[in-house]
Amino acid sequence: MQSTYALYLHSSFLLDTLLVKAARGEPVSRPPAWMMRQAGMYMSVYRKLAEKHPSFRERSETTDLIVEISLQPWEAFRPDGVIIFSDILTPLPAFGVLFDIEEVRGPVIQSPICSEDCLKALHPIDLEKLHFVGESLKILRQEVGDHAAVLGFVGAPWTIATYIVEGGTTRTYTTVKSMCHTAPNLLRALLSHLTKAISEHIIYQVESGAHCIQIFDSWGGQLPPNMWEQWSKPYITEIVSIVQNKCPKIPLVLYINGNGGLLERMKGTGVDVIGLDWTVDVADGRKRLGPRGHILNLGHGVLVGTPEEAVAHFFEVTKSLKYESSSQNHAMEESKLLV
Amino acid sequence: MQSTYALYLHSSFLLDTLLVKAARGEPVSRPPAWMMRQAGMYMSVYRKLAEKHPSFRERSETTDLIVEISLQPWEAFRPDGVIIFSDILTPLPAFGVLFDIEEVRGPVIQSPICSEDCLKALHPIDLEKLHFVGESLKILRQEVGDHAAVLGFVGAPWTIATYIVEGGTTRTYTTVKSMCHTAPNLLRALLSHLTKAISEHIIYQVESGAHCIQIFDSWGGQLPPNMWEQWSKPYITEIVSIVQNKCPKIPLVLYINGNGGLLERMKGTGVDVIGLDWTVDVADGRKRLGPRGHILNLGHGVLVGTPEEAVAHFFEVTKSLKYESSSQNHAMEESKLLV
Repeated sequence: MQSTYALYLHSSFLLDTLLVKAARGEPVSRPPAWMMRQAGMYMSVYRKLAEKHPSFRERSETTDLIVEISLQPWEAFRPDGVIIFSDILTPLPAFGVLFDIEEVRGPVIQSPICSEDCLKALHPIDLEKLHFVGESLKILRQEVGDHAAVLGFVGAPWTIATYIVEGGTTRTYTTVKSMCHTAPNLLRALLSHLTKAISEHIIYQVESGAHCIQIFDSWGGQLPPNMWEQWSKPYITEIVSIVQNKCPKIPLVLYINGNGGLLERMKGTGVDVIGLDWTVDVADGRKRLGPRGHILNLGHGVLVGTPEEAVAHFFEVTKSLKYESSSQNHAMEESKLLV
Repeated sequence: MQSTYALYLHSSFLLDTLLVKAARGEPVSRPPAWMMRQAGMYMSVYRKLAEKHPSFRERSETTDLIVEISLQPWEAFRPDGVIIFSDILTPLPAFGVLFDIEEVRGPVIQSPICSEDCLKALHPIDLEKLHFVGESLKILRQEVGDHAAVLGFVGAPWTIATYIVEGGTTRTYTTVKSMCHTAPNLLRALLSHLTKAISEHIIYQVESGAHCIQIFDSWGGQLPPNMWEQWSKPYITEIVSIVQNKCPKIPLVLYINGNGGLLERMKGTGVDVIGLDWTVDVADGRKRLGPRGHILNLGHGVLVGTPEEAVAHFFEVTKSLKYESSSQNHAMEESKLLV
């Protein structure tokens, strides 16, 4: 794989990373690749570290650990994107929503929001409380140099609201979906608060060194499309507008689980990149969305139990690809081979 | 609602029911409506009956009970389709796959298929063992006359295979998905056997009185589209071809949970009607699939806890609708109002 590696190093001499160029739809020599949840339990180095530091909150809120974990897949596979190890719930305490992570139930919000009165607990995001995010991104940026993009991320307002209203994870989303009908003003107030806090968190991540930001509307697909238009899209659109105004060069990626019925609507938010989940074929997605660049990913997080060799193979194959020309049309043809 | 009811009775004088006409894309005065799982736990009459007959297998394999349950929503709401109360697993013992239904785990296959040797247990479907299905459909046909369509249904081969291979319900589909790669010939042999059995079961239901058949590929959306093309679509296509040859006038409906990434591919099976699940907007579906008739449904089964009054209201509103003209273009406009 020596020649492939040389090709890869070559691209690193450009000012923008391969991933950022592809995200902007600029010509690239091959599709850049990263994987959602590329740092995690499927890696033995991570499992070893998690044994020593069994608290997820400790691992995701301590600069040294965040950096170490974020770099584990970088050291093992040299992906084209290094995403900060964090969680979409990490910023919650910084704007007044306290939570614990319990062994069985997962995240548990201490005081779920259920009335106008509960909103009083919310305050503007205090970014100093997220110093470990900024510090980690700065270090990651130094560590990977221009060899890969450093990715930051946030949860979308709707997705974060599902946790804050339901009190944790849910299979049915009954409480928050009911709130759409029974307390729309309360939900709108919560989503507006989250929109401001999340926008500021994105800008903080960019100013700390993130080259690109992924917005996870993980549970956006739990809304029928007409409700997503009302309860998720406007808040994402507002975030995009705020961030693009402040950081015009930073590509924004929007990902939704189960987004086969939402692709065209996602485009309407103004994001630069639409994350296709695994239920959508890349060629179908391109037909529905029009020509675009291609960043290779899985369409889901790496599953626990995935052999590390398989992940290594995925990245090796990616690096051996070469578009016949730098045109995006050829990129389109190549990308079909990969799905 | 007297006038609405009159309109409804009027349509019953036609030879084909409103639902069958809409399924064929013929002009209709309003969209016909039925609901998946319209007989079930959300109805107090059903809960009362289930207390007396706590075994699901008894309720779904005894002619009198099947008829009584199937007619419960008919008597309460007068839907345009009366679907036989049954289960996609009901025919399994008739071709050699025995199962129990356990309180917590749900269906449990006694001997999941895990090797070529296991296939020996399979035999051609013995429709006499499903006499209660045929008897019930005959009675349902008499009971509803031409006032509504009587609907039969089956599970698609892939979906049935997930149960037979996994041994029951699953969250991950790991065993059957692995089998696609590690024992493709075994899985193909199983799917081919199921294709024949399911085709015969459909024809039996039609000959017993079903006006229309719904194929539930409930877990088809658990496959990425390229794998659905390989492991589900060919077998559905074969069923459609066999049934259309034998029963050319019977509309076939295909439904998949989470089908936003599969719509165009579903069309390729040759079915008459594509069931949109709740993650796809009707107007979006129509844009992607071209002009079609519209049968109103929920895009999911009625959830336990749904107020019966809400279901009654849904059907009342449907019956009050009237297309401005009988053209399908107008049908398209109207249908948007309903989603």
